[in-house]
Amino acid sequence: MSAPPVLGLIPDLPDLLVEPQVRAALIEDLGRAGDITGNAVVPADAHLCGVIAARQPGRIAGMAAAAMAFRLVDPAIRFEPLAADGASVKAGDAVARVAGSARAILAAERVALNFLCHLSGVATTTAALVAAARPHGPARIVCTRKTTPGLRLLEKHAVLAGGGANHRFGLDDAMLIKDNHIAIAGGVGVALKRAQAAAGHLVRIEVEVDTLEQLDEALAAGAEAILLDNMDLTTLREAVRRAGGRAITEASGRITLDTVGAVAATGVDLISVGWLTHSAPILDLGLDVTAPR
Amino acid sequence: MSAPPVLGLIPDLPDLLVEPQVRAALIEDLGRAGDITGNAVVPADAHLCGVIAARQPGRIAGMAAAAMAFRLVDPAIRFEPLAADGASVKAGDAVARVAGSARAILAAERVALNFLCHLSGVATTTAALVAAARPHGPARIVCTRKTTPGLRLLEKHAVLAGGGANHRFGLDDAMLIKDNHIAIAGGVGVALKRAQAAAGHLVRIEVEVDTLEQLDEALAAGAEAILLDNMDLTTLREAVRRAGGRAITEASGRITLDTVGAVAATGVDLISVGWLTHSAPILDLGLDVTAPR
Amino acid sequence: MSAPPVLGLIPDLPDLLVEPQVRAALIEDLGRAGDITGNAVVPADAHLCGVIAARQPGRIAGMAAAAMAFRLVDPAIRFEPLAADGASVKAGDAVARVAGSARAILAAERVALNFLCHLSGVATTTAALVAAARPHGPARIVCTRKTTPGLRLLEKHAVLAGGGANHRFGLDDAMLIKDNHIAIAGGVGVALKRAQAAAGHLVRIEVEVDTLEQLDEALAAGAEAILLDNMDLTTLREAVRRAGGRAITEASGRITLDTVGAVAATGVDLISVGWLTHSAPILDLGLDVTAPR
Amino acid sequence: MSAPPVLGLIPDLPDLLVEPQVRAALIEDLGRAGDITGNAVVPADAHLCGVIAARQPGRIAGMAAAAMAFRLVDPAIRFEPLAADGASVKAGDAVARVAGSARAILAAERVALNFLCHLSGVATTTAALVAAARPHGPARIVCTRKTTPGLRLLEKHAVLAGGGANHRFGLDDAMLIKDNHIAIAGGVGVALKRAQAAAGHLVRIEVEVDTLEQLDEALAAGAEAILLDNMDLTTLREAVRRAGGRAITEASGRITLDTVGAVAATGVDLISVGWLTHSAPILDLGLDVTAPR
Amino acid sequence: MSAPPVLGLIPDLPDLLVEPQVRAALIEDLGRAGDITGNAVVPADAHLCGVIAARQPGRIAGMAAAAMAFRLVDPAIRFEPLAADGASVKAGDAVARVAGSARAILAAERVALNFLCHLSGVATTTAALVAAARPHGPARIVCTRKTTPGLRLLEKHAVLAGGGANHRFGLDDAMLIKDNHIAIAGGVGVALKRAQAAAGHLVRIEVEVDTLEQLDEALAAGAEAILLDNMDLTTLREAVRRAGGRAITEASGRITLDTVGAVAATGVDLISVGWLTHSAPILDLGLDVTAPR
Amino acid sequence: MSAPPVLGLIPDLPDLLVEPQVRAALIEDLGRAGDITGNAVVPADAHLCGVIAARQPGRIAGMAAAAMAFRLVDPAIRFEPLAADGASVKAGDAVARVAGSARAILAAERVALNFLCHLSGVATTTAALVAAARPHGPARIVCTRKTTPGLRLLEKHAVLAGGGANHRFGLDDAMLIKDNHIAIAGGVGVALKRAQAAAGHLVRIEVEVDTLEQLDEALAAGAEAILLDNMDLTTLREAVRRAGGRAITEASGRITLDTVGAVAATGVDLISVGWLTHSAPILDLGLDVTAPR
Repeated sequence: MSAPPVLGLIPDLPDLLVEPQVRAALIEDLGRAGDITGNAVVPADAHLCGVIAARQPGRIAGMAAAAMAFRLVDPAIRFEPLAADGASVKAGDAVARVAGSARAILAAERVALNFLCHLSGVATTTAALVAAARPHGPARIVCTRKTTPGLRLLEKHAVLAGGGANHRFGLDDAMLIKDNHIAIAGGVGVALKRAQAAAGHLVRIEVEVDTLEQLDEALAAGAEAILLDNMDLTTLREAVRRAGGRAITEASGRITLDTVGAVAATGVDLISVGWLTHSAPILDLGLDVTAPR
Repeated sequence: MSAPPVLGLIPDLPDLLVEPQVRAALIEDLGRAGDITGNAVVPADAHLCGVIAARQPGRIAGMAAAAMAFRLVDPAIRFEPLAADGASVKAGDAVARVAGSARAILAAERVALNFLCHLSGVATTTAALVAAARPHGPARIVCTRKTTPGLRLLEKHAVLAGGGANHRFGLDDAMLIKDNHIAIAGGVGVALKRAQAAAGHLVRIEVEVDTLEQLDEALAAGAEAILLDNMDLTTLREAVRRAGGRAITEASGRITLDTVGAVAATGVDLISVGWLTHSAPILDLGLDVTAPR
Repeated sequence: MSAPPVLGLIPDLPDLLVEPQVRAALIEDLGRAGDITGNAVVPADAHLCGVIAARQPGRIAGMAAAAMAFRLVDPAIRFEPLAADGASVKAGDAVARVAGSARAILAAERVALNFLCHLSGVATTTAALVAAARPHGPARIVCTRKTTPGLRLLEKHAVLAGGGANHRFGLDDAMLIKDNHIAIAGGVGVALKRAQAAAGHLVRIEVEVDTLEQLDEALAAGAEAILLDNMDLTTLREAVRRAGGRAITEASGRITLDTVGAVAATGVDLISVGWLTHSAPILDLGLDVTAPR
Repeated sequence: MSAPPVLGLIPDLPDLLVEPQVRAALIEDLGRAGDITGNAVVPADAHLCGVIAARQPGRIAGMAAAAMAFRLVDPAIRFEPLAADGASVKAGDAVARVAGSARAILAAERVALNFLCHLSGVATTTAALVAAARPHGPARIVCTRKTTPGLRLLEKHAVLAGGGANHRFGLDDAMLIKDNHIAIAGGVGVALKRAQAAAGHLVRIEVEVDTLEQLDEALAAGAEAILLDNMDLTTLREAVRRAGGRAITEASGRITLDTVGAVAATGVDLISVGWLTHSAPILDLGLDVTAPR
Repeated sequence: MSAPPVLGLIPDLPDLLVEPQVRAALIEDLGRAGDITGNAVVPADAHLCGVIAARQPGRIAGMAAAAMAFRLVDPAIRFEPLAADGASVKAGDAVARVAGSARAILAAERVALNFLCHLSGVATTTAALVAAARPHGPARIVCTRKTTPGLRLLEKHAVLAGGGANHRFGLDDAMLIKDNHIAIAGGVGVALKRAQAAAGHLVRIEVEVDTLEQLDEALAAGAEAILLDNMDLTTLREAVRRAGGRAITEASGRITLDTVGAVAATGVDLISVGWLTHSAPILDLGLDVTAPR
Repeated sequence: MSAPPVLGLIPDLPDLLVEPQVRAALIEDLGRAGDITGNAVVPADAHLCGVIAARQPGRIAGMAAAAMAFRLVDPAIRFEPLAADGASVKAGDAVARVAGSARAILAAERVALNFLCHLSGVATTTAALVAAARPHGPARIVCTRKTTPGLRLLEKHAVLAGGGANHRFGLDDAMLIKDNHIAIAGGVGVALKRAQAAAGHLVRIEVEVDTLEQLDEALAAGAEAILLDNMDLTTLREAVRRAGGRAITEASGRITLDTVGAVAATGVDLISVGWLTHSAPILDLGLDVTAPR
C-alpha cells in the first residue's frame, strides 16, 4: 500500500450524512426477517475474525460506509481500517480487519462490500484517468451530476479519493448554463446576463459552448468558467488560446482513458467525465475469514 | 423498436416501493434551493417539448422511475413512454415524449436520466448475456445480492427487463448457505440439516459447493439447489451429471460474455453474474428538445 | 420458569428492524410534551427499582422491544431480562429487573409493557395450540399474514417463541395461490403453471384448494405445498392420503383449541391459525416497584 | 345495517394522521418485490369487482384506513363504503364495494382487512360493553393507554365508533397520578398539590386511589377526577357516595362483560377497560369477489 | 448568573422528542458536502476549546438542543453547560464550555447557536413580561399556538424557562372555542354545550368571548375557562368581577411590555401573548475560542 | 397592493422541498387526535368562505407554504392567492381567498398563518432595510446562516421576496473563512491559500477581515469577496477604496435600520444582516370569515 492522498483534500464525511444511505441499504438486505441462513446455521455465540482484502490493484474509497454497515448491525463488532480512503492497494492487500459475532458479521458483510467495492471502483477509475492525463497537462479530472441515484455524496467523495476534483454537487450550489438553457434564452450572452443578475455573490457561473463563436460570446459577457462540449482537439486548443486565462476551461464529451492524455495536452483546466460515476466497474474486494471461533 | 418482453414476467412495480428512491434522488439533486440556473435563465412560463432518445442500441428499464421523477417535480408535466421496460431499442429511437414547464423539465431531467440510463444499462448487459448463453444451453441468467446500495428492487427489475431472472432479494427470503457458513457449521451436511430444521415450509434452501465431494454431500443431504462456485468447465459438466435433475444447479464465479456460452453448454440451470448489477455500464440516453415554446 | 426454547429457532432480531416500531410507539405515547404527570409529581433525582412480573402463567416474547423502550427513553436505565423469549413463566414470576431514573422508567413503562404483553400473548396462545396438537400428530402450528398492522416481524417472532413456525412474511417472499387467483386464472392447473414459469428458483409455491378434485389437479401439476382450506376431518384425512408425502399439506380454516388435536390427527404437516396473531389476548404482566429511592 | 352513530361524536380522522400507519403496513406486506403471486398468475389487465362483507354481526370501524390501503396501492381502484364507522352490521352485510385492477386489489386486500377487522373488533367489543352497562347506570365505557403499539389513534377512534369514550391519548394531554407516583411523592395529597402547581390551566388532573381513605384525601385536595382502582362493588358504591358529584369517578380493574352491569349500577361516571384495545378479538370480514372481468 | 428556576417546573425534554429537529437543522446547514471551509482550512487534528458567552443579559433556554447539535456532529466533543434552562445571565457570562475537534465544533457551532439564541430570546422576553406583570397582580404569562413551525415543543419549554406557563400544545389536547366556532355554532351557549357533550373527561374547555354579554352566556353554560379577547381595562375588570372565581379568566389581544402591568392589575388569571413565541428577538450569544490547539 | 417583485428573482419553490416542513408543522398542531374543538362544535358539513387579510402594511412571503397547509389538511379546500410573494400590501388588503369545509379550514388556519406571518415578517423587514439603504448606495441587503432551525429555505426565499439577496445556503455551497478559521490556520493569507487549493472550480471563497491590514493580506492573496466585520464607517470607506473593485465587499455587524443608510453610503457591495431572519417580528395577518354556510 502506498501513495497517501494529499492531506486535507479528502476530509471525513460526517456520519450524519452517510448513515441514512447505509441504514437504508441494510434494511434493503435484511428485509423483514433478517439473515435467516446465518440464524439457522451459525451458532449464536460463534465469533469470527477476518480481513477484507483486495482481489485486484486499485484505489480505496468508502471505508467509512463499510465500517458503519458493520456498526449498525452490531455495535460490538470491531472494525479496523488498514487503508484510508485514497490509499492505493495491490491485489492481496488487506484493507480492513473485522472481528465479532459471526452472525452479525455475515449479516453485514454484503452491504459493507457493496459500498466499498462500488466506491473503490469509482476511485480506481478516477485514479487511472488522473494518471493518464497528468503527463500531458495540468488538467484536473472532475465528475458530473451523472451519479448513481442516492449515492452522490459518496461518489463525489470517491472521486476525491481517486485524485480527481468535484464539479457542483447539485442544481443549487452553482449555475451551469447548458445548451437547452441557451436555446430557450436566445443566446449565450442573454443567458449569461440573466444568470449574473440573479446569482448570489457566492454563486459561480459556468456556461457550456459548442462552438468558438459561442466561446467568444461567453468571454465577451464575462464568463468565469466555460464548458467546451464535444470539441475536437484542434478546436479545444484554439478555445484554450482564446480564453487566455480569463476563464476556466473545461473539456467534456466522451473522453476515454485512451483520449484523456491528448485532451489534457490542449491545456484545458478541467476534464469532466460522466462515466467516472455512472459506469465505473467495481474494485473487487472480499472478506476472508481468518479464524472462526 | 421490437421484441416485447414475455407477458407477465415484468410486472409493474408499485409506486409505493419506488417513490422513496426517486424522491431521495430528486432532493439530492435539488439541494436546498432547487435549480438556480433554470430559475435565473428560463422564463417561468416557458414550455418545452422533447423526446428521450437512445444514443446507442440496448434494452430499456426504469421507465416508471423516470416518469415519476418528472411527476414529482411537477405533476403537470406530460410524460408519455414510447417503449416499455424490456423493449429493445436502436440508436436514435425515441423512448419517451415529455412536455410541460421548461423549468420543471430541466430540473427533473438529470435524475430521470440517471435512473433510466443506469437501469437500462443493467437490462442491456443482461440481454447480452442472455443472447450469448441461449444458443448453448437452457441456463437462465440470474443476478446476485451484489447490487448498488439503495437500488436493489429497481436493479432486480431491470434484470427481468433484460430477459434474466432474479435470485433471492435479500437475506430473509431464502437461505443460501455459503462457504463461511459451512466452515463455521463444520461441513455441508451439518449446515444443510440445520437450515432444513429451521426453515419455514415456504423457504427454499440453496447451498454453495466448491468441490464434487461437497456436491455429493449436498445431494445426499437432500439439497434442492446447489451453487457450483468457481468450477472449471469439466467439473461443472460432471457436477450437472451428478445432480442429475435432483437439484437445481447454478454456476457462479467470474463468468464473462466470452465464457457464458461455454458455461451454458455444461447444462447448468442457472448462471449467476454479479457484475450484471454492480458493474454494468449505463445505456446512453439523452433528452432532445424538439420545441421550446 | 422452565422449558427453554429450542436453540437456534428463536434468533435475536436486529435492533435495526425493531427500533422504528418502538420509537414510533414511544412518540405516540409521549406526544409533544412528554410525561407531564411524572415531571410534576416525581422529583428529577428520584430513582426506582422494580421488576416486571407475570400476573398469569404464559410464554414470554418481546423482551428486546421492552428493553429498547426503556433504553430509548433513557440509556442510563438498567434493564436486566430474567427470562428469554420462549421461556415459560408462572404467575408471579419476575421476567425482568429495571432500575434508574423514576421519571424515565415511569415514562417508558406503558410502551414497554404494551409490547411485552401483546407479544407474550401471541406466544402464549401459540404455545397452547402447540400443546393441544402435539399428542395427536406431527403438525406444526403456523401463523398467517393476518397480523396487526406494523407489528408483523415482532408477531412472527412471538409465534416462534411460542413453539410455532412462520408462514411467509409477506406478498414477496413466497407464492401462495388462493381462491381468487384460481378463479381469475381459470383453474388450479393453469394458475400453478403460470406461477412455476414466473418464480425465481428460490421461490416456493403453495396453492390453496377447497376440494379433493382441486387437490388432484394441484398434485398433477406438481404442487410442492397445498393449503387445504376449510375441509372437514374426513376430507382432510383423505387429502393427506392422496398427497402421500409428495406435497406439504396445510390445514386452515377456523381451527380452535378444541379442534386442533383432531386436525393434527389427520396427519397434515401444518396447521395455520390466523387468530394467533390477530385475536390473541395479552399475557398480563406488570411493573412492581420494589424500591423507590 | 342500522343504528347510525350519534352525529359529531365520530369525526373523520385527517388523512395526514392515518397515512403513515397504512403506508407502513403496506410496505410491511409488499416487502421488496410486491405481490409476486398476483403478478405471476393474474393478467395485468384483469379487473375485479367485490364486496367486503361481515362474516358475523358487529360494529364497524376503520373504514378510512381500509379505503386508504386500496388507494395507496392504486389510486384508480374505486372503493365505496356502504357502512360508516359506528354502524352496526349483521352477518352477511356488505360494508364496502371495491372495483379495479385485480392485481392491485388482491395486493391491498390483506392490509385493508387487517385494519378493518382489528378496528371493527375493538368497536364491537366496546359496543357489547356499552350495551351491558347501559341498563344499569349512566357510566361511559372508556379505553386506556393499553393500546397496540402504533395504532393508538385508530383504536381510540374505534372505541368512539363502538359508543365508548376516550381517556387521555398519551402522557402529555392530561395528568393521571397513579400508585407509583403517589408512593414516590409520599401520599395522595402531596402528589395532587404538586400536579396542580405544575399543570397548565387547560390540563385536567385525575388521581388513582385504592382505598376510601385515599379517596377522602383526594377529595380534600380538590381532585376533579378520581380513578377507583380494583375496588369491590360495596366500596365503589361508597366511593361514589362520598364523591357526591364533586369529582368524576372512574372504576377500573379487571371488569368483564359479566361484571360491567353491576359496576355501572354503583353510579360511577366512567368504567375503563384495558382489554377493549389490547385483547379484543377481530370482527371477521372478508372480500367476496363478485365479478372478475 | 443567578435566580435558578423553580424546581420541577422546567423538566428535561426527552431526547427522543428533540433529536429530529436538531438533526434536521444540522442537515439543513451541512447540506450534501458538509463544512467545506473547515475541511479545507482547519487541519484534521486541530483541537479547540471555547466558551459560549452571553453578549447581553437574559434568560437561558435551549441548552439541551445546543448540546445535542455538537454531539450529533461528533460524539467526542465535550460540552459542559454552565447554566441551566431558566437561569438568568449577565452580559459576558459563559453559559457553556466546549472542547474537541476544531472541524467538528465549527461545523456544529451555528446550528447550536441558532437554537440557543432563539430559545433564550423567547425565555428572555417571557421573563421581561413576567417581571412587568408580577407587581400588579397574580396573572401568569402564557404563550399561544402562534409558534414557529417545527419548534413548538422547544418554544413552549422556553416559555417555562422564562417563568411563564403553557397554554395548550395543539388542537388535540384541550378545546378552545373561538369566534369562528361560535359564529358557526350560533352562539356561545350552543357551542359550549356541544363541546361539553363531546369532550373526554380529561379534556378541559375554554371559550373566547368578546363582550360581557357573551361572558354571561359562557358563565351560565358552566364555562371553566374564558378567554377575554381584546377587551379594554374597564371591561376586563368587570369581566373578572362577574367571573367571580367560577371560571379561569385569560386576557388576550395585543398586550405589550408597557400594558401588561395594567392588564395584570385587572385581576385576570392569565395573560396570553402571541409575540412571546412568534416575534421575540434572539438573545445574543456567541462562541469565544479560548484555546486552539 | 402594488410593486410586483422583479421577474425571475423570486422563483417558485418546488413542493418537494417545502412539503416536509409544512407536513411536520401540521402534525405538530394536530397532535394525535386532530382538532377536537372543531370536530365537536362545527357540523361536519359546514362550509366556510374567508379571506386572509393583512392587519398592517408589509411585504408578502410564504404564500406557497400557506396554500400547502390547507391542501394537506383537505385537498378539496379552494385556496386562491390574491398576492404573490414579493407583493406589497396595505393594512386591510386581502392576500388570499379560502373556501371549503369549515372543520378543515379551521384545522389548517393556524399553521398556514404561522408560516405566512413569519415569512412575511422576514420579507417586510428586508424591504424596510432595502428602502433605507437604496438612496445612499448600491449595496444589496443579504441574509446570513442565522436562520430559524428548519426554515432556512423558506426564510432565504422570504429575503428575496423583500428585495434582498441570498448569502450562501449552508456550509457546503461556498467557503466563508471566518475569524476562528484564520486563527487556527495562522493568518488570512495561509487560510486563503488552503481554501483556494481545495475548492472546486465552481466554489467561490469569501474571507472575513477585522482590520485594514488583514484586508490588504486578503487582497494580496487574491480574495474574490471580503467580509468587513464590525468596522466603523471611516474604516469601511477606506476598505472599499482599497478593494477598488478587485473584490466584492460586504459590511457586517450590528447594522440597524438607523445605520444601514450610512453603511450603504460607504460604497460596499453587500450589507449582511443576521436579524433579518432570526429576529424579524411577524407581519400580522388573519383569517376573516366572510360567509359561513
